[in-house]
Amino acid sequence: MNILVLGGDGFLGSYIVENLVRTGHEVTVFDRFPFGVTRNLEHLHGNIRLFSGEFANREDISKAMEGQEVVYHCISATNPASSWNDPFIEIDENVRHSIQFFEIVAQKVRKCKVVYLSSGGTVYGRHEGLINEGTVPKPFSPYGIGKLTIEHFLNYYQHNERLTADIYRIGNAFGPRQPMHCPQGVIAKWMDSILNGKELLVYGDSMTVRDYIYVNDIARIVSQSVDRLANSGTYNVGSGYGISITELLETFQRVVDHPFTHRLLPRREFDNVSVVLDISRLLGQCPEFIFSDFQEKLSETWNYVKQKKGETI
Amino acid sequence: MNILVLGGDGFLGSYIVENLVRTGHEVTVFDRFPFGVTRNLEHLHGNIRLFSGEFANREDISKAMEGQEVVYHCISATNPASSWNDPFIEIDENVRHSIQFFEIVAQKVRKCKVVYLSSGGTVYGRHEGLINEGTVPKPFSPYGIGKLTIEHFLNYYQHNERLTADIYRIGNAFGPRQPMHCPQGVIAKWMDSILNGKELLVYGDSMTVRDYIYVNDIARIVSQSVDRLANSGTYNVGSGYGISITELLETFQRVVDHPFTHRLLPRREFDNVSVVLDISRLLGQCPEFIFSDFQEKLSETWNYVKQKKGETI
Repeated sequence: MNILVLGGDGFLGSYIVENLVRTGHEVTVFDRFPFGVTRNLEHLHGNIRLFSGEFANREDISKAMEGQEVVYHCISATNPASSWNDPFIEIDENVRHSIQFFEIVAQKVRKCKVVYLSSGGTVYGRHEGLINEGTVPKPFSPYGIGKLTIEHFLNYYQHNERLTADIYRIGNAFGPRQPMHCPQGVIAKWMDSILNGKELLVYGDSMTVRDYIYVNDIARIVSQSVDRLANSGTYNVGSGYGISITELLETFQRVVDHPFTHRLLPRREFDNVSVVLDISRLLGQCPEFIFSDFQEKLSETWNYVKQKKGETI
Repeated sequence: MNILVLGGDGFLGSYIVENLVRTGHEVTVFDRFPFGVTRNLEHLHGNIRLFSGEFANREDISKAMEGQEVVYHCISATNPASSWNDPFIEIDENVRHSIQFFEIVAQKVRKCKVVYLSSGGTVYGRHEGLINEGTVPKPFSPYGIGKLTIEHFLNYYQHNERLTADIYRIGNAFGPRQPMHCPQGVIAKWMDSILNGKELLVYGDSMTVRDYIYVNDIARIVSQSVDRLANSGTYNVGSGYGISITELLETFQRVVDHPFTHRLLPRREFDNVSVVLDISRLLGQCPEFIFSDFQEKLSETWNYVKQKKGETI
């Protein structure tokens, strides 16, 4: 199948590309490739087509979409922290350009499935306990509002019957290749601090709970959308259980073979308290799916970042 | 109290202005007033301050907001039909300018209450039975998506504690002064058709149900926000019961003293099927509120439009 992955050279995008290539698809990766250099896909050169373009550019998207049967949308110009004081970026970059992209798909492509990577950690806002897809979304950050608005517009474009869509509301992804200097992704950030001899900043308390999911588990799950071309759906994607920030710290103490110190700090205003996603609907689609072991993957991620650090020294 | 009404010369806005003036407030009406002419407020000249400005213009809004304690936001550049094929208008006009307005309020005003007129008929999307504020919103038109996105951004700006906000999700408003050539407002449109000897276009069937509410009932309800400055809330505003399009036609046959014919047509894609708002939360705020009689107000509206038509002949 011909598949386009927007933002396919990014953290999650690159795992999706890997899975799609492994299962025999013709994958085009749409991203910024200055001088043809990829960040995360060197090992796939020769097996993928690279399309260097700007998400904002209507012509780039139109051209890249030619002949595609499925398109994954993994592009975001922001994260919850960066959007906090600039809601306009959310509208002008993420929402507006996503609508433009959906419009191109709806108008120009004969028949296509769109897969949108949304955010289970931000679209629901503050809720206690397990959150399912029928929970009323109350996003409180511009980032979460933007993601939800994009979901709504993707649903709107389905009135055009040439378009089907899967929306995945994803928990806290982690794993090798996660950007380490970004305010999103506490695991990558803590590992970066440890490698640089800095104190770990622990925002929140034992009430601060997240649903961590290994990045390749996400990629394996969302890759299955290509097997359901005629259907549309919205799915939570998480591990189904919560880990508190204090439990995360304890797991770090078991896994990490470097000494480190930490400092407890109050929750930031853009941080959610608890996010644990009910994944019953997802498991209905893939009942056989086996999730990776959290501690094992945390350990693998640590070994990866240590090795990377070693390479750059 | 000093109160600003954005779009206060419009259909609903003008009734809100009337109610606020009647209860002794200092009201500034922000709207487009070419040559100082108002559309709906001639009878209040001398009792209100007119501010002619553009909602898109940051300086106009900043200036109009000076010294205001409450601001009503009744501006929309679109309606469900006009937004249907142009989602960008929704983002560029309604969403973006509303965020800009909220930002001005949050940054420049010492303490302010914002009252936003949202849409009970479009933010929820397709649901059966009574819809309450805890129903998961699934807007399917760009208009409804825009309204909901604006609600979310208004909630976001409340993290700035200088801002409180009431959001009113309103059913189908009707009454004198409703624009008659606009695709929104079936009652006004049908009356216009009758007066012009045209066939009534009846989109939908006996399943097409709406929650009609007399415009001054809405204005009386939302005017009460000025008595709850410290609180924020989201409220459905409807009559609490549904009237099918065929029942509406029968009421027209009883009330209207002109002959007319009608044509049954299929539901349009931007039309919802059934909208009946659960108003329990609203009644909790104003348990003594007495709603107007539907048939009586329909008759009054008919007499008003007949008289207006007579004046222009």
